[in-house]
Amino acid sequence: MQYPKNVQKLIQFLSKLPGVGKRTAERYAFDMLINWSSNEIIELEHNLNTLKTEATFCSACGVLTEATQNPCIFCTDTCRDHSKFCVVASPKDVFSLEGISEYSGVYHVLPALLSPLDGRGEEILNLSNLLKRVQENSVREIIFAIDSSVEGDATCLYLKQALESMPIAFYRLAFGIPVGSSLEYVDGGTLARAFCGRSQF
Amino acid sequence: MQYPKNVQKLIQFLSKLPGVGKRTAERYAFDMLINWSSNEIIELEHNLNTLKTEATFCSACGVLTEATQNPCIFCTDTCRDHSKFCVVASPKDVFSLEGISEYSGVYHVLPALLSPLDGRGEEILNLSNLLKRVQENSVREIIFAIDSSVEGDATCLYLKQALESMPIAFYRLAFGIPVGSSLEYVDGGTLARAFCGRSQF
Repeated sequence: MQYPKNVQKLIQFLSKLPGVGKRTAERYAFDMLINWSSNEIIELEHNLNTLKTEATFCSACGVLTEATQNPCIFCTDTCRDHSKFCVVASPKDVFSLEGISEYSGVYHVLPALLSPLDGRGEEILNLSNLLKRVQENSVREIIFAIDSSVEGDATCLYLKQALESMPIAFYRLAFGIPVGSSLEYVDGGTLARAFCGRSQF
Repeated sequence: MQYPKNVQKLIQFLSKLPGVGKRTAERYAFDMLINWSSNEIIELEHNLNTLKTEATFCSACGVLTEATQNPCIFCTDTCRDHSKFCVVASPKDVFSLEGISEYSGVYHVLPALLSPLDGRGEEILNLSNLLKRVQENSVREIIFAIDSSVEGDATCLYLKQALESMPIAFYRLAFGIPVGSSLEYVDGGTLARAFCGRSQF
């Protein structure tokens, strides 16, 4: 026995979401069928209709922004320090970083991280765009706010080497024990990084 | 710093899904923004448009069915035993039960389970509809395929008492150790039920 065709299709769509398998997608679809009102479904539909037209990515730095505000609020904000770049791997990370209000420079969102095994070579980084922005803004400081993974490490290293000839100071976020976590539950890699990066107390 | 308005709204919608909090909804929304093509978004939108019109719930038993097939394939199938009712708590459960092809009767989907603390009293069960269907089909056997929870147990008991005066045999699915699971990981309640329900070997 099969689900009605459009329910099958909805399940297919929902299982495209990150971390969502067939079972979870079925659960979501049935929830929408049973617990959502027709009005809510219509509203979601309208919302999807405008999703890619009302929200867009800044043509300069790649940050998510309203379509009416392009370049984004960071690129057009003269109070921010345009000689400081924070390089991130996803537009979502910018919202996390803005949440802590420690940083007053501008951003640069990479299209993706290097991963030659998945066919993502250096051309994926769009280095010429970064170089152009770095020169235009006379950048003096670049902070890589990128995960410590094979892809993340490789990308940071590659970009640092590509820009090394310029008078730029490079930084990477500190890796260590999460605040509130317990040593007991921290993996060896994290502990090693925390040990190497220990600060005087 | 806030997300663009329609992204905020999409996140609100997605966090209505069962088990999805704000963080997961943000992850879903960004995946749709970054990784889904405009075509996929449009298709999903069309799919939502027809969701509640092309799929519906059987007017007799409450099973999910195509709108063109109402009453559903079970209610109209003369090969099935209409004197056997399987009572379930959600239209989704019917698809799981049909997957094992052990059962040849028909179904009855309850609108919800009893839960007086959440304001769901006996009126939620729509007992008169069940009684009517039981009489019309001269039901001789009712199988409760309902979870063993406070709400599930209360609902089964209430329905059994309401129908007890009729010549009906009542059954409930067996509770015990899941196949493939280990005794070690099974909770005490399940173990107790498995012990009480032990079969001669």
